[in-house]
Amino acid sequence: MIGARARRIEDPVLLRGAGRFAADTVRAGELHMRVVRSPVAHGRIRRVDVSQALLVDGVVGAWTYADVSDLPAIGFRLTPRPELLPYRQPVLARDEVRYVGEPVAVVFATSAYIAEDGAERVDVEIDPLDAHLDPDAAPVTWIDADHATWAAGTGSRLGAQDSEATTFVEEYGDVDDAFQKAEELVENGTHRVVTVDARIGRHSGVPMECRGLVAMYDEAEQQLVVDGAAKVPFWNREAIAEMAGLPPHRVIVRETHVGGGFGPRGELYPEDVLVTVAAMRLRRPIKWIEDRQEHLVATNHSRGQHHRIRALVRTTDGFIEAMDCEFTLDQGAYVRTHGATVASLTASMLPGPYVVPHFRARARVRLTNKTPAGTYRSPGRYEGTFARERLVDKIARELQLDPLTLRRTNFIPADKMPYERPIQAMGTHLVHDSGDYALLLDKVCERYDFDGIRAEVEQRRAAEEIVGFGLAYFVEKSGIGPFEGARVTVDGAGQVTITCGASSVGQGVDTVLAQVVAHALQIPHDAIRVVRGRTDQFEYGRGAFATRLAVMAGSAAANAAEALVEKCRRVAAHEFRVSFEEVALHDGAIELVDDPGRRLTLGEIARLLEPVRAGMLKEDPGLSADGWFRSDHMTYPYGVHAAVVAIDRGTGNLSIERFIVGYDVGRALNPTLVEGQIAGGVAQGIGGAVYEEFLYSEDGTPLCTTFMDYLIPTVLEVPDVEALITEDAPSPINPLGVKGAGEGGTTAVAAAIGSAVDDALRVPDAITSVPIRPSLLRRLVDHVPTP
Amino acid sequence: MIGARARRIEDPVLLRGAGRFAADTVRAGELHMRVVRSPVAHGRIRRVDVSQALLVDGVVGAWTYADVSDLPAIGFRLTPRPELLPYRQPVLARDEVRYVGEPVAVVFATSAYIAEDGAERVDVEIDPLDAHLDPDAAPVTWIDADHATWAAGTGSRLGAQDSEATTFVEEYGDVDDAFQKAEELVENGTHRVVTVDARIGRHSGVPMECRGLVAMYDEAEQQLVVDGAAKVPFWNREAIAEMAGLPPHRVIVRETHVGGGFGPRGELYPEDVLVTVAAMRLRRPIKWIEDRQEHLVATNHSRGQHHRIRALVRTTDGFIEAMDCEFTLDQGAYVRTHGATVASLTASMLPGPYVVPHFRARARVRLTNKTPAGTYRSPGRYEGTFARERLVDKIARELQLDPLTLRRTNFIPADKMPYERPIQAMGTHLVHDSGDYALLLDKVCERYDFDGIRAEVEQRRAAEEIVGFGLAYFVEKSGIGPFEGARVTVDGAGQVTITCGASSVGQGVDTVLAQVVAHALQIPHDAIRVVRGRTDQFEYGRGAFATRLAVMAGSAAANAAEALVEKCRRVAAHEFRVSFEEVALHDGAIELVDDPGRRLTLGEIARLLEPVRAGMLKEDPGLSADGWFRSDHMTYPYGVHAAVVAIDRGTGNLSIERFIVGYDVGRALNPTLVEGQIAGGVAQGIGGAVYEEFLYSEDGTPLCTTFMDYLIPTVLEVPDVEALITEDAPSPINPLGVKGAGEGGTTAVAAAIGSAVDDALRVPDAITSVPIRPSLLRRLVDHVPTP
Repeated sequence: MIGARARRIEDPVLLRGAGRFAADTVRAGELHMRVVRSPVAHGRIRRVDVSQALLVDGVVGAWTYADVSDLPAIGFRLTPRPELLPYRQPVLARDEVRYVGEPVAVVFATSAYIAEDGAERVDVEIDPLDAHLDPDAAPVTWIDADHATWAAGTGSRLGAQDSEATTFVEEYGDVDDAFQKAEELVENGTHRVVTVDARIGRHSGVPMECRGLVAMYDEAEQQLVVDGAAKVPFWNREAIAEMAGLPPHRVIVRETHVGGGFGPRGELYPEDVLVTVAAMRLRRPIKWIEDRQEHLVATNHSRGQHHRIRALVRTTDGFIEAMDCEFTLDQGAYVRTHGATVASLTASMLPGPYVVPHFRARARVRLTNKTPAGTYRSPGRYEGTFARERLVDKIARELQLDPLTLRRTNFIPADKMPYERPIQAMGTHLVHDSGDYALLLDKVCERYDFDGIRAEVEQRRAAEEIVGFGLAYFVEKSGIGPFEGARVTVDGAGQVTITCGASSVGQGVDTVLAQVVAHALQIPHDAIRVVRGRTDQFEYGRGAFATRLAVMAGSAAANAAEALVEKCRRVAAHEFRVSFEEVALHDGAIELVDDPGRRLTLGEIARLLEPVRAGMLKEDPGLSADGWFRSDHMTYPYGVHAAVVAIDRGTGNLSIERFIVGYDVGRALNPTLVEGQIAGGVAQGIGGAVYEEFLYSEDGTPLCTTFMDYLIPTVLEVPDVEALITEDAPSPINPLGVKGAGEGGTTAVAAAIGSAVDDALRVPDAITSVPIRPSLLRRLVDHVPTP
Repeated sequence: MIGARARRIEDPVLLRGAGRFAADTVRAGELHMRVVRSPVAHGRIRRVDVSQALLVDGVVGAWTYADVSDLPAIGFRLTPRPELLPYRQPVLARDEVRYVGEPVAVVFATSAYIAEDGAERVDVEIDPLDAHLDPDAAPVTWIDADHATWAAGTGSRLGAQDSEATTFVEEYGDVDDAFQKAEELVENGTHRVVTVDARIGRHSGVPMECRGLVAMYDEAEQQLVVDGAAKVPFWNREAIAEMAGLPPHRVIVRETHVGGGFGPRGELYPEDVLVTVAAMRLRRPIKWIEDRQEHLVATNHSRGQHHRIRALVRTTDGFIEAMDCEFTLDQGAYVRTHGATVASLTASMLPGPYVVPHFRARARVRLTNKTPAGTYRSPGRYEGTFARERLVDKIARELQLDPLTLRRTNFIPADKMPYERPIQAMGTHLVHDSGDYALLLDKVCERYDFDGIRAEVEQRRAAEEIVGFGLAYFVEKSGIGPFEGARVTVDGAGQVTITCGASSVGQGVDTVLAQVVAHALQIPHDAIRVVRGRTDQFEYGRGAFATRLAVMAGSAAANAAEALVEKCRRVAAHEFRVSFEEVALHDGAIELVDDPGRRLTLGEIARLLEPVRAGMLKEDPGLSADGWFRSDHMTYPYGVHAAVVAIDRGTGNLSIERFIVGYDVGRALNPTLVEGQIAGGVAQGIGGAVYEEFLYSEDGTPLCTTFMDYLIPTVLEVPDVEALITEDAPSPINPLGVKGAGEGGTTAVAAAIGSAVDDALRVPDAITSVPIRPSLLRRLVDHVPTP
């Protein structure tokens, strides 16, 4: 079963329309919450008056900051640098608004329509202040001294805070020394300093389903039940419990089906706190379903980076001896649950597959009067890969080297694996666990006939088409720990259930866990049921982010299944009065090795383990076994993206004609799912490369608040993705050898398309920024060298 | 905490009106089910036509037998004698109805009112047959040969079955031999044969809340969720799963709060199957809430026995050398989930506290065209105790012995404990585990000044009042196995939760389990939360019946708490770098024995046990421990009931002026709860002794279908119960020494009141039947001897 193209066990329910998404959770007596949001990017609140809203028939309550002043700001789930604490977002704005869309008040009513009517009657008076929108501009005062202490939550009195929330460096080798010597080397002609200035636009994940949550305080059971979370239900359980003043075991968080997650969806937001606290205080079920307009201004944005890199390069072969990067990250108005995760990952993953003996990246996390930013599929790597691979392409061009050869020159050699880069990534030592970067490049070149592609490009150019071919290489990370657990249970009817702390954001985790257990038990994977995202069914789980579950939950499930088989063998051996070695698993049953006709099915063994008999056997009652997997290192899959693009000479329209992905995932638990992940990831990468950007007017008004303005690529814009999945470098640090595959479809898309467009235009430094705007292409098409 | 008069932790929720009873479970889109019931006691179904019902707007479906012909009859949970199989009840009547109230069709509609309207339009044509109503009459053909095979479910072809479903004997010693020798002994004057003919009327438990169930097939999670069950949720889970064609782990049964259980409520009935199967087939939530009229004809009746006993008694001291009993049990129209439990318990518990060297009881379980009968609080013992103690009183009268002395003569002596009676009770060897029957009698006589009571009775008689004092002695049984389990869990906030397979029918099981765990952890009991009656939270549970949970679940909880303390000590010892012996529990924390200031609270230990650290400590993650208790013997509490009654000379009205209970429960986990159980039990016992009886007209029409006709005693009829709880005979077979206290308030009420009324009337053999009717008393008051 492991490695099989098994069908997704999630799909039958979804295809029959029987899925339950957040909005499908209907509670008797529920109230609907509507958020009143700031219409200005920056300003002082003069007055928020809900009295007219309360007059609307059906409005049950309305809150302003005064009603929730006891609630702390939203805390950090990851990368919680202490200096970021003052920048956390309050649940409702206190006396200053910092972005358009910031929650200022909430209205609760008996229907969503009445709640909206009520919200329109909330009178919000704000004195506008200047909006600070450019993260590259000099930092400004962000929190004045009057507000510093309130906003700090650090326990100690703070002064005013500026808009650079944090700056930090990831570094190894001796970059300063390298560049001090550079002048002489450059003069000698042995080296060259190559610089690149790269911008990645502000965009984010826009899942089919906006956010939503339904919370009910169950008076009879004295517990708060929260439906609709996904991604990190256990973390959210803890956070909600603290906010609601309940011990964690009295909060039950339950995932519903989700229309994708992609990073932004499923984190704890002000709205989630408002919903759960309102359920406690109003003693009515509270439902909040975000609409698309809200989603585009209220849910985490992402990307939005500006990199300036200089590299010291050996002239002969393009070997990069040192790389020095400084980048700004447009954090938006607050620092949310991710803390400094994106900046940190950008910095530490920037060297990618290359040795780069001396490396430094300085991150500057800057606040602006825009929607707060968080993680989005391949956070930091999408941005860093674009910047780095643009640099590598530029080196190739400047040194007139073949881009593939240049990359091979710089690759960490396969025989140096595992390869430690003496920096941290997500709090772990950055050790490339395995990999043969050149081999994958060779395989992709051969499989997709890169020479042939190049020849075809040349031919078409001769016919005056504007076409180009480009590629980019990247290293991903996956499988962050520290742990996952799983329980495999068999009932008396032989039904096998995996109960675990994993979460689903639609990626197919149920299917791969079922495959892992089916493999161990030698049963069909679709006979297995997976229960996850239920904090009352399993005690611990870290969530679905950072491409971690195939590695972590998959390994835990493998361990649980192995423990289950051992328990089965012990029981069967006792039943048959033979030794443990004389029985073996075969096709979902334990057989006598010497007489396979004598067998006990899993269901029969489960029935044998009722409590009295189990006690006699000194076994825990029931056929169930837990497995855990713990890890303090990540795994590092790697890949190459390549694109063929064509630009319409008349309109400047960019067509992505082919998109090729080569990806080594260590071991593909289910190649179909890996391909699906890659295809979806590429589509989202294309969005950021060509179409999607959150733009703001000069006063900070968001210009992209509907899908008319925020363009997501459709099936017309995304080519069939051609994917070669390889398994040449299984991870040595987990029992399955697997590396996660959730983000590698996205990572290098901007870099590869940028490379291809550059190749098409043949105008130096043409593409240093994504999304690649039609206006730019229109300006440049006339300058494309003709054959 | 153990033994404390701790407040019930169940009550705050209930007192605030926040309880959730079956009817409070509201599901979006639910349909309401209404049962069409037979209006005749016995007849052949000619036609059941639902077509007019289906025309009612809002009716969604209607079923007759043809729609559920694939469903098996309701099976046996207890005492499943194979000869009873043909007598099981089908879910809907096939072609013959056997009692008024038998389900013939069901209607599903969008409201309960519409369902009722629809049900009225179901056209049921039945050809009436003679109703067989007297279980003492000769057996008649019950199932004719045509139907025998269909009804059998035994796998083999059966012929016609008569209305005596089973007859069996419990016996030890040599009764035939004893009575063969009796003639001579009687002639010699050394012995006497005393006979008694005793009838116990048909009555049953009528909990505040009628039955009810809400079932929903959750398409998204592929599981059937059933709310509203109590008593035996795990058994019902298995039965429902089988009927619904689902593996048991895909059926989740959840107890709601209940307005009492008392035996009848919570068993699996045809309606429960219909609700759950309809939820599967109609794919809508189905709700059924029984009304009172239905309850009185459809829910298990009970009692309804007729005993004929002869006893061979030594003339000098009244020692009972042999007892021979034959009794009929009015089973009603079908044999339901209890199988032969009531008959079996009646027979085996009949000798009570007395030695009786030669004993035989023949049970005859007879079908009649009445509502099927099952267990009701103190099943078999209420009936048997009435018959036996009437016999003992008669012996005392005939031999002119003091009734107390006579009982002492016959008691199993304390120094013979544990005392094995070589018969079975509920499938276990009947071993009186401990007891000093005479000591309890002494204590009760002294505490309540029986001599003083007798003197007062004499005084009042002299004043021409008709007053009497009587008593009865009994042995109860409790703590049937085979097992219970419990899990004690502590979360990071220190919240202690007990999760277990126990059920609540309102008896306060949460409180006593919390006390047991609080005792072990040295924390307040009301800081503990109990999760039970949730088949998705704990894997095994046997249910709340037969007064078993204090013994079984209490002991399991004690074992779990002990295991938890050990785990805490291991973790704390590791943390403090000392040995296991150097740390000890104190007030909910583990302290260093030599330095109690250094301590770790339970919450702190729970936080230490997150999965990574737990792995390093080689502990299962999380602070949680399971405990099990297994037992293959019951425990035997015992008691005495005494009553002072007065009869109004003009009206014949019977007043129960005092009711005294002495009860040895081994160890009272919470005396307040034991007293509460006793008080409630006495009230129900009084119902059966004086007020409650299900009467039928000659054609089998039930005459008691409302509380106008079925009289339950109110606070006006029930005196304050005076209870002396003793702990002189802790059970040696469980770690708490506890014996259950749930039924002993009921057991001897009819016997004691019968004795007191006899004493008041002083007419030989006046009271041989309960309920004691006013008409009888009116007839007799004129014959009461005057002073």
